Amino acid sequence: MSTPSNSNVEKSGFREAMCRLSSAVCVVTSDGPAGRLGFTASAVCSVSDDPPTLLVCMNRMSQQHVPLRENGVFSVNILNGEQVDVSALFAGVGGLSTAERFERVAWATLVTGSPVISDCVASCDCEISHIHEFSTHSVIFGNVVALRLSEPCLPSLSYFARKYHSLEAH
Amino acid sequence: MSTPSNSNVEKSGFREAMCRLSSAVCVVTSDGPAGRLGFTASAVCSVSDDPPTLLVCMNRMSQQHVPLRENGVFSVNILNGEQVDVSALFAGVGGLSTAERFERVAWATLVTGSPVISDCVASCDCEISHIHEFSTHSVIFGNVVALRLSEPCLPSLSYFARKYHSLEAH
Repeated sequence: MSTPSNSNVEKSGFREAMCRLSSAVCVVTSDGPAGRLGFTASAVCSVSDDPPTLLVCMNRMSQQHVPLRENGVFSVNILNGEQVDVSALFAGVGGLSTAERFERVAWATLVTGSPVISDCVASCDCEISHIHEFSTHSVIFGNVVALRLSEPCLPSLSYFARKYHSLEAH
Repeated sequence: MSTPSNSNVEKSGFREAMCRLSSAVCVVTSDGPAGRLGFTASAVCSVSDDPPTLLVCMNRMSQQHVPLRENGVFSVNILNGEQVDVSALFAGVGGLSTAERFERVAWATLVTGSPVISDCVASCDCEISHIHEFSTHSVIFGNVVALRLSEPCLPSLSYFARKYHSLEAH
């Protein structure tokens, strides 16, 4: 492993490169002793199927960071191509409170009690199995304990170059 | 943090859910003391801009896992919408050797010596700053030390529900 050198890469250039890494748009929710919460996230990826595990990268300065950790559970809701308004709602557009956000979407619970938003392409209900701190962010590993999948598979909401796209499954 | 319970989620269900997590298609390359290598990857995400850092999830059973670690560097090449053949090539379709794969694409180097494939939407040249082992996989953190971006931004190759899609930047 090489010793990290001083990077000549500016934050602005790096951010532009990461805007070019297309991704699914997800809403991460949680509920438990620290209360209900939800936020839009794109830094989510699959880790292992043994045990079924995914990860979410979360800014440690977020007000929802400590509550999520305290709840110890979360749900990743992969939005469908028509849920741009849900993405905006949980990204904080309009400035609604958490309670107001959850009044505006239909949701249920599976195993952990974290809100599972209706009509998603897929939702993964998770228990936090590990947290790896990295600089400004926490990389939160979730053991998937329950799933909900749309049947048939709905189009997916994707984000690329600061714009939304809808991808057909067929 | 809750104690992980026994998951009732089958691998097949989890894999189906992860197929529904749309993602950019990337080719991760490396070169150094352990030799040149390259493979197609979709489990890549942005971590932090301070320092500029991304992560790649890699199966530890891959033959390229140890060489990548030994080289200590890698490049993430975010493919453009017309590079389906490059994705297939580095996913092992056709069974070509590493040398043959790199004969079939144009590439250069930036700082680390890892191959930077031409005409990508963006390429991030990285030094490995940390590796977190998680079950079957390694989560490899890369400090981005150089960038190459297409100008103008090319369409992105995305993968969703086992199919390729091309996303326009405009």
